[in-house]
Amino acid sequence: MNPPPMAIPETIRWTPDGMGLVILDQTRLPDERVELELRDVRAVEEAIQSLRVRGAPLIGITAALGLAALARQAVAAGATLEELHASVEGWSGRLYEARPTAVNLGWALRRLASVTDTDFADAGALAERLAQEADAIHAEDRRMCRAIGEHAAALLEDGDAVITHCNAGSLATGGIGTALAPVYVATEAGKRIRVFADETRPLLQGSRLTAWELSQAGIEVTVLADNMAGSLFASNPPDIVFVGSDRIAANGDVANKIGTYPLAVLARHHGVPFYVLAPTSTVDLDSATGAEIPIEHRSPDEIRKGFGKLTAPADVAVYSPAFDITPADLIAGIVTEWGIHRPPYGASLAEAVERARAT
Amino acid sequence: MNPPPMAIPETIRWTPDGMGLVILDQTRLPDERVELELRDVRAVEEAIQSLRVRGAPLIGITAALGLAALARQAVAAGATLEELHASVEGWSGRLYEARPTAVNLGWALRRLASVTDTDFADAGALAERLAQEADAIHAEDRRMCRAIGEHAAALLEDGDAVITHCNAGSLATGGIGTALAPVYVATEAGKRIRVFADETRPLLQGSRLTAWELSQAGIEVTVLADNMAGSLFASNPPDIVFVGSDRIAANGDVANKIGTYPLAVLARHHGVPFYVLAPTSTVDLDSATGAEIPIEHRSPDEIRKGFGKLTAPADVAVYSPAFDITPADLIAGIVTEWGIHRPPYGASLAEAVERARAT
Repeated sequence: MNPPPMAIPETIRWTPDGMGLVILDQTRLPDERVELELRDVRAVEEAIQSLRVRGAPLIGITAALGLAALARQAVAAGATLEELHASVEGWSGRLYEARPTAVNLGWALRRLASVTDTDFADAGALAERLAQEADAIHAEDRRMCRAIGEHAAALLEDGDAVITHCNAGSLATGGIGTALAPVYVATEAGKRIRVFADETRPLLQGSRLTAWELSQAGIEVTVLADNMAGSLFASNPPDIVFVGSDRIAANGDVANKIGTYPLAVLARHHGVPFYVLAPTSTVDLDSATGAEIPIEHRSPDEIRKGFGKLTAPADVAVYSPAFDITPADLIAGIVTEWGIHRPPYGASLAEAVERARAT
Repeated sequence: MNPPPMAIPETIRWTPDGMGLVILDQTRLPDERVELELRDVRAVEEAIQSLRVRGAPLIGITAALGLAALARQAVAAGATLEELHASVEGWSGRLYEARPTAVNLGWALRRLASVTDTDFADAGALAERLAQEADAIHAEDRRMCRAIGEHAAALLEDGDAVITHCNAGSLATGGIGTALAPVYVATEAGKRIRVFADETRPLLQGSRLTAWELSQAGIEVTVLADNMAGSLFASNPPDIVFVGSDRIAANGDVANKIGTYPLAVLARHHGVPFYVLAPTSTVDLDSATGAEIPIEHRSPDEIRKGFGKLTAPADVAVYSPAFDITPADLIAGIVTEWGIHRPPYGASLAEAVERARAT
């Protein structure tokens, strides 16, 4: 008997008229499932800035679809080709500023800019070409998630328990996610997979987002505070660890949400394999090792009063890096859309980047 | 030049008339420093139940001082010796129920009960004997904290950074704490000691209480989310780990606040010594190993909406043990009032318990 189809939450789509976006407002989760229509540049910008959409791939897709929707509106309002070119440039600059450190945002906007260079018969033709490119970005992301999920699902057996950190699920992408993709693929294939989700202080993406999206899909999920993983490994160890990544150095060192590294140390201490799942676009060959990846620090108030309440002395010093580095030697494998890379990672990751560039 | 005297917060004292208690209301920290006068059994009971006073030693001291204050009031109101005996028994039963799992609460009340067995000239003599015994419990706790602090201060060098978890400081005791005691002693001796305090999900005793009491005492403290300790060990490792304990098994396995064990694993991974500081009364020779220590699980809502806000799907499953077990082989030393015990712990801990019983 096949399991019922899973309700993996859809994060973004066109409005029926193709002149706007419908997004799932992630700031309202897990309290309420609210969809928002975005129909002007201010709304798209605000959605990215306020983390209504988040996750590197999804931010890029939102900017691309948003820009194309605005272009279609301008056409409907009678813009000339020249006017549309100018408008697209203005919107693009504005959206780029919404979260300047998000690598995929700049990448998606540059991809759209590159298609405006050719000759177009009229403004309508340009707008449709932009929409086509935005759809392509979205479709590629869906395929990439699916490929990662299919490669990594081979690591899962019926009855396995997975532990994950932060949210590298459908809510971070335009598809079925990265770290959670194999959970969805294996479940579709009829395996029973359970997930433990670290709540992920300070912003609680694990309890707010991962727990929510897995619950929606009917997958058994248990939330724990980050510091409870030790007790879990000691008493009832999960079979495997799956996490995403914000940046992977050339040697396989991995930057990911703060708390990933201690999870990797625990996994090593208990002999549980630790896997990183991320698209090849995450690999940064310019960073030779993790030591070269810059680590952003968050606002102290996320720790001192992260829940709207003073939970520490108001002026106490805070150590709050946004990411940590998991050294390659703690990682059993890195799963990209090209397959499962095994240590040593250098040559294999470089080859994957080469293949991605060539396609 | 000696450092200025430290303002280590006082957690409990008699009212000037000796017929009530003044406690520091720990539920108001770090927002406000509020002292409460407790003058009836309901107030003492409520303060213990609502965690206005917390920490095993401090709970015992509160019950003892509270019972004696009530006895003095009864004497002032003209109670006979017989009436006072009956009242003390009633109050004691009621206070015992306030937090039945707190070992020191029952222990302190039994100690007071034992002094009621002798003959007294009148109700006033009984009340004063109770007050004397309560003062003795408080004074012993102060001496125990000081002794732990002096033994462990020898482990600290000028400029050292300590990392700690939860609150095993003055706020948990009637003295200068256990895990924090050597920080105070070394600072008094003119050493510069810095402390990193894990915030300690779910109830944030580290950020709310440890950070507050160290700040009050003028000691440099930095708060971090529990999952940030990995990054700290990798980038700028502390010199030593000091934690308290809720129960120590005969072989030296240690039960302490959830999150202690992963900190011990990290410390081992980075070659940083991990010490447990606790009075001999914490050693439970009836538990041969940590496997025999029962682990209480907390309410799922401390994780699902611990800050008064829904931070996970309302009905999601939660894994929330209150304590974890750190195996003896990760512990460099256990510091009691008798000195620093080194592995293997069995004989040395048994001898300390024997000495404590004999005094």
